[in-house]
Amino acid sequence: MTTSIARDPRQTAGSPAPIAAGDFAAAEARTAWRAGTGRLDDATLQRIDKWWRAANYMSVGQIYLLDNPLLRRPLDRDDVKPRLLGHWGTTPGLNFLYAHLNRAVAEREQSTIYVTGPGHGGPGLVASAYLDGTYSEVYSDITEDEEGMRRLFRQFSFPGGIPSHVAPETPGSIHEGGELGYALSHAYGAAFDNPHLLVAAVVGDGEAETGPLATSWHSNKFVNPRQDGVVLPILHLNGYKIANPTILARIGDEELHALMVGYGHEPFVFVAGFDDEDALSIHGRFAALLDEVLDRIAAIKQRAAEGDESRPMWPMIVFRTPKGWTGPAWIDGKKTTGSWRAHQVPLASARDTPEHLAVLEEWLQSYRPAELFDATGRIEDDIRALAPSGDLRMSANPHTNGGLLLRDLRLPDFRDFAQDVPSPGATFAEAPRVLGQFLTEVVRRNPDNFRIFGPDETASNRLQAVYDATDKQWNARFEGPEVDEHLARVGRVMEMLSEHQCQGWLEGYLLTGRHGLFTSYEAFIHIVDSMVNQHAKWLKVTNDIPWRRPVASLNYLLSSHVWRQDHNGFSHQDPGFIDHVVNKKAEVVRVYLPPDANTLLSTYDHCLRSRQYVNVVVAGKQPAPNFLTMDEAVAHCTRGLGIWEWAGSEVPGEEPDVVLAAAGDVPTLEVLAAADILKRELPQLKVRVVNVVDLMRLQDETEHPHGLAHREFDTIFTADRPIVFAYHGYPWLIHRLTYRRNGHKNLHVRGYKEEGTTTTPFDMVMLNDLDRYHLVIDVIDHVHWLRASYAGLRQRMVDARIAAREYTREHGEDVPEVRDWVWPDAGETGTEVGGPQADRLSTTDTGGDNE
Amino acid sequence: MTTSIARDPRQTAGSPAPIAAGDFAAAEARTAWRAGTGRLDDATLQRIDKWWRAANYMSVGQIYLLDNPLLRRPLDRDDVKPRLLGHWGTTPGLNFLYAHLNRAVAEREQSTIYVTGPGHGGPGLVASAYLDGTYSEVYSDITEDEEGMRRLFRQFSFPGGIPSHVAPETPGSIHEGGELGYALSHAYGAAFDNPHLLVAAVVGDGEAETGPLATSWHSNKFVNPRQDGVVLPILHLNGYKIANPTILARIGDEELHALMVGYGHEPFVFVAGFDDEDALSIHGRFAALLDEVLDRIAAIKQRAAEGDESRPMWPMIVFRTPKGWTGPAWIDGKKTTGSWRAHQVPLASARDTPEHLAVLEEWLQSYRPAELFDATGRIEDDIRALAPSGDLRMSANPHTNGGLLLRDLRLPDFRDFAQDVPSPGATFAEAPRVLGQFLTEVVRRNPDNFRIFGPDETASNRLQAVYDATDKQWNARFEGPEVDEHLARVGRVMEMLSEHQCQGWLEGYLLTGRHGLFTSYEAFIHIVDSMVNQHAKWLKVTNDIPWRRPVASLNYLLSSHVWRQDHNGFSHQDPGFIDHVVNKKAEVVRVYLPPDANTLLSTYDHCLRSRQYVNVVVAGKQPAPNFLTMDEAVAHCTRGLGIWEWAGSEVPGEEPDVVLAAAGDVPTLEVLAAADILKRELPQLKVRVVNVVDLMRLQDETEHPHGLAHREFDTIFTADRPIVFAYHGYPWLIHRLTYRRNGHKNLHVRGYKEEGTTTTPFDMVMLNDLDRYHLVIDVIDHVHWLRASYAGLRQRMVDARIAAREYTREHGEDVPEVRDWVWPDAGETGTEVGGPQADRLSTTDTGGDNE
Repeated sequence: MTTSIARDPRQTAGSPAPIAAGDFAAAEARTAWRAGTGRLDDATLQRIDKWWRAANYMSVGQIYLLDNPLLRRPLDRDDVKPRLLGHWGTTPGLNFLYAHLNRAVAEREQSTIYVTGPGHGGPGLVASAYLDGTYSEVYSDITEDEEGMRRLFRQFSFPGGIPSHVAPETPGSIHEGGELGYALSHAYGAAFDNPHLLVAAVVGDGEAETGPLATSWHSNKFVNPRQDGVVLPILHLNGYKIANPTILARIGDEELHALMVGYGHEPFVFVAGFDDEDALSIHGRFAALLDEVLDRIAAIKQRAAEGDESRPMWPMIVFRTPKGWTGPAWIDGKKTTGSWRAHQVPLASARDTPEHLAVLEEWLQSYRPAELFDATGRIEDDIRALAPSGDLRMSANPHTNGGLLLRDLRLPDFRDFAQDVPSPGATFAEAPRVLGQFLTEVVRRNPDNFRIFGPDETASNRLQAVYDATDKQWNARFEGPEVDEHLARVGRVMEMLSEHQCQGWLEGYLLTGRHGLFTSYEAFIHIVDSMVNQHAKWLKVTNDIPWRRPVASLNYLLSSHVWRQDHNGFSHQDPGFIDHVVNKKAEVVRVYLPPDANTLLSTYDHCLRSRQYVNVVVAGKQPAPNFLTMDEAVAHCTRGLGIWEWAGSEVPGEEPDVVLAAAGDVPTLEVLAAADILKRELPQLKVRVVNVVDLMRLQDETEHPHGLAHREFDTIFTADRPIVFAYHGYPWLIHRLTYRRNGHKNLHVRGYKEEGTTTTPFDMVMLNDLDRYHLVIDVIDHVHWLRASYAGLRQRMVDARIAAREYTREHGEDVPEVRDWVWPDAGETGTEVGGPQADRLSTTDTGGDNE
Repeated sequence: MTTSIARDPRQTAGSPAPIAAGDFAAAEARTAWRAGTGRLDDATLQRIDKWWRAANYMSVGQIYLLDNPLLRRPLDRDDVKPRLLGHWGTTPGLNFLYAHLNRAVAEREQSTIYVTGPGHGGPGLVASAYLDGTYSEVYSDITEDEEGMRRLFRQFSFPGGIPSHVAPETPGSIHEGGELGYALSHAYGAAFDNPHLLVAAVVGDGEAETGPLATSWHSNKFVNPRQDGVVLPILHLNGYKIANPTILARIGDEELHALMVGYGHEPFVFVAGFDDEDALSIHGRFAALLDEVLDRIAAIKQRAAEGDESRPMWPMIVFRTPKGWTGPAWIDGKKTTGSWRAHQVPLASARDTPEHLAVLEEWLQSYRPAELFDATGRIEDDIRALAPSGDLRMSANPHTNGGLLLRDLRLPDFRDFAQDVPSPGATFAEAPRVLGQFLTEVVRRNPDNFRIFGPDETASNRLQAVYDATDKQWNARFEGPEVDEHLARVGRVMEMLSEHQCQGWLEGYLLTGRHGLFTSYEAFIHIVDSMVNQHAKWLKVTNDIPWRRPVASLNYLLSSHVWRQDHNGFSHQDPGFIDHVVNKKAEVVRVYLPPDANTLLSTYDHCLRSRQYVNVVVAGKQPAPNFLTMDEAVAHCTRGLGIWEWAGSEVPGEEPDVVLAAAGDVPTLEVLAAADILKRELPQLKVRVVNVVDLMRLQDETEHPHGLAHREFDTIFTADRPIVFAYHGYPWLIHRLTYRRNGHKNLHVRGYKEEGTTTTPFDMVMLNDLDRYHLVIDVIDHVHWLRASYAGLRQRMVDARIAAREYTREHGEDVPEVRDWVWPDAGETGTEVGGPQADRLSTTDTGGDNE
């Protein structure tokens, strides 16, 4: 329990995994990658067809029906929902694939999960989970009889019911597919370190047009055939989006084949539904193709087990069917099946148009429900038998409820990596480099359930110590040690120049019960804004689903932050990711701004123990002073914020004249330098210095679980004294968080303003009025009795800024009095991590910045 | 002048284009797509080599040198910058390509622009712009002599100087490349409707790993060979990123070839720099290849001119060189050239390490500067002659300073599309559908400089009227009218299922002097958060660059908004894009929330006339009441916000008891319904109803150019009466914007909370406490004399909410009293756009939502 978050007992680590992960893994391993039997008799194909019909029937039922689920009586308009919502077009294809995978999974006892790229095909996945029994197990109210089916139909896209997507409510889902693009990233995230797992990942041809999906095919260069599981991409070419054809369905077979080969796959093409081919013939063809593909995969796994871990051309399936396959071919004289018109609800006026109602009834009856469900409404046993049983059911596979398999990380004592801090500011470190030493040990102790993800920046972000313990995993060509440093076929670090991929891989890894972190540039983490949205929503919803077990938090480390973009410029400056995250539900987001190395260690130790959060940690990578001993750091992080008495000039028993507060490493440095000036220039002024690590502490306790009580807040910030607050990001967030505070009316925030570019650190803080001189000016301006009497000091501060600006423009580096400033009581300087102290605040960054 | 923005005269349309766009286009057309001469004599190759050496020399000079630019004396440590910043690795390749393109462009007089995907190769593009004379033309201080070169070197990545990227400061740039991924999208955006323009687009192999870039290759299915320009992608395989090899350099030639064919290209492969091949031989090989490629393009253009507009396999170039080509091969025993170590500054300690200083000097001298520059420091005339002249210089091509070519849109009078509003609420419309009628006429009148971009959602977002005047441009396979509705080889609507592509295309289109809009789902527009960042920064910076002319604004229409995600769920709910945009510099962002159809027309007319903004317009697509006549709408939009006297119960001459304010269409509806209840239930209560269209009006005039003066604000919102504010998005933004207002202490905001999902409209607003009943409760709670006396009414409101919630759960649609509610004075209902009135507020959405 190291930071303020620990007050929520549910969220701390240590809750035992409710199933024995080791036993499950052993069972998985025993049957993994068997060859098929080659047996595809008519009975099996019949069973597949019946499952498919049942799933299609139930999908249509969910979209349209309020009642009369088994059509025991003629369909009446009142049986139809008043608002028809949902997506039919993709669903029959998803059901077809699910049925066939059921057959293969059961036969081979191959642990398999199903990632539904076209996640809006929710009715199909709900139907399949119901057909294999999982749904009724987790939702006891949805019984396996007519009444249960009625409830199942009714709840779909209905107020108080379930969403239309493959949402967290859907058993077997780790991928909602609400926003398209991440199916393959999630699939590979699930596959890493699960050597016995097959991930069947359906990619819609609409989704395939998105950027993130287009690059995620290259994930196959990062997967290890021995140590990792296998992703089987199935490109579902149903040809249409909402209103358009899809690109990949219209580029011709040769280009599509080349594209898949170019992505590193061996494509297997399946086409069906465009003629009158008999259903059993279709099933027979696909089952044979699937067996061939799975046998091919088994052979690759076999070779890998024998030592050949080089990258194979992994098989993938091109699955070309009509959109809305098995639905009404034409409606009102317009081609529907096999067109974009089948995307959502083809018979939107079924309730009000008798002819449409008749078409709907005919459509439902075409699946012959009487052959599929018994008198009570239960699925026939023979059909149920198609699915595997227990944990092998794709809807029940424990990997899809990752908290079931989650093991706590084996963490070293972060105190062992403490920076020696004989007095505040006496030593220096690059905080992430210190964190890297801790993470190195985390990697050593957790060789199969912890990974670090980053877009080519792990070393740039100063975590390179981890390469003492591991490598970057890579399975494209190697060219030798001169150029391939820390590159290996297995490794805990995953680097690809795509924030989307890093985020998607990590999400898939976490949702299947593992741990990790994502290190990125602060400005570019906005690339995944909308992905964070979806993950945060997923966490929020799963908090309210009892059968979903908590998963490890999604941890960010943003160490190339807005204040030090030396190699780059304005385009690399934006601290707004914090604002974006804070808009998410308070119960799932945490933001930390540790001011030095020891507080970063303490913070990250907490983050790695936490569950169900999005933890954003911002900590600069440049050499900076260490302020707190490890004991002080732990206390400070546990409080989340606190008074740094040593830095201020308070008189015990008296209220301060002014509060100087900081959140963020650069702001902390400037606040301390301002406090130093004030001590020297205005020794009679009682200055309180406050530092904030856990940003959420600023908020009201009614707004956020971490929020300070008002009384506590007043004790620290005072109720009526001026507060000059130096903040890492856009200043408005501090106003927002402290809005209900007594001190808010006296609060003056300096933060990042959307202004230009600069290439020396002090120039940057001056550009934003966050520099020490300006903070002193702020104090003079806001402490009323200083205003008139210290105009001279104020002017000296203005002059100091002008001189400092002039100096940078002349010399290209910071003015020495700033560059060489140290906390006056720092005493002798001690050891240091990260380069000679002389360079500490203006060091030339040789570690590599982003492009 | 229709909305409040119009006060800034610089930003209004009508400023004449400073060059005659028609003349330029005619000149371009005269020489476009000529075949080459085939002449590649040694003198030409020598000239190319010298240009390349000069550009490389000047690139190294910019990164390292403070002084001694021509090495007239031995290099001294003080000649070297104290902080070495920038990126060498990509630069020599960029310079090589630029030199060769110069030759071809001059010979063929082919209007060409150069898009630098690896935008961090800024020194190269600055050098080339200097060598062809453009730089000194736009920056007169950077003269063409030794002193000018000294200044040029010094300013690079220096405080007060220029950024290290191909920033707006760089002549010839429309693409900074700060954040990677958008080079091809920008290139295609530039090529649309510029039939005589060649866009040479260099794609770095790092950038090629990003999602947006990976899908942007497919842009070639959307370009028309006759009407549009040509993008020549050049994939620069230099093999490494900051710290890793690149994927595409390590998948082998066959897979790479297949990938490019799969993307629809004919690849031409060039490899150089890996052996001791003579420079002239290298240049000869590349020049011949480039000629072949350009001749191939010319032939395609010829066929298109003759009528064959079908999609060809467009040529592209694979350009494989060592990273940091021509730099020091090994440094300190480590392979540098041809490795990731060449990415940034290979000799980071050149100033402090004499051996490194010597290597640097040797490196600079290897380009033989004495052969390149004359005694004054000017580039030799013979080298300069390689470049084309005037507007044909790639650094000076007018397309790269789009404002030069920008023509005002020919706009119809938006009043002609007005909805008839005999009394407030008497008629209904789907506002975007009405806007679509206006846009149809815009399309008709501007057939070559206006486009609509959207991810498969133009019709879903209700703009389908535009298909009366145009089609969706498409150049993959056609399958016939049954399925290919409104699909054609030319059209003004661009639909691909990638928000990145839509945004990137539009940015490229705008920056080259055209107009457009992007319609998307509100929740998913976060996908382009970081792209908006970069574009807003670009606009902000260009506002301060005198030679950059204003370009048309980037206009969003978010009509599938957070309050009506019927087909979808929680994953589609997030109104935070507004918050994201508001963090950008006030001078470049505008946010509008028109409450009905006529205000949307007025708002969009303004947006299409404006320059240099990011305009975010949120307007729901569902049928909703029309409140304002067109005259009222124009007045309302011009004010930006105002009192709706007809809706309130004020007594002239008396202050209201409470202010009910709304921003957004759904909030407006609920506020009016609440005002209706209050009129009936509390006739003695003086309610003022305020509506806000232009969100920025809420802000202080010191914070935003649109901000109201405090006095004006108090007049409207009062200084001391309770304000109950119903807002479209996250409530905090309203607090932020009104923070300095007198009324802020009395402000109570209801907006979107991060909560669950629902599928009926009223359920959704109830979930967020934004419903009419809750707004009445808010009024009772905040008007002190109501609190005790009207507990009964309060409880009835609570009961009404409970009953409404129960009703939706039972019936799956909204309670009739809500669904059928109309403004009580609405009188007879009139005409309507968008379906039967009975369905107006709970209509089943048959127009297609996004997955």
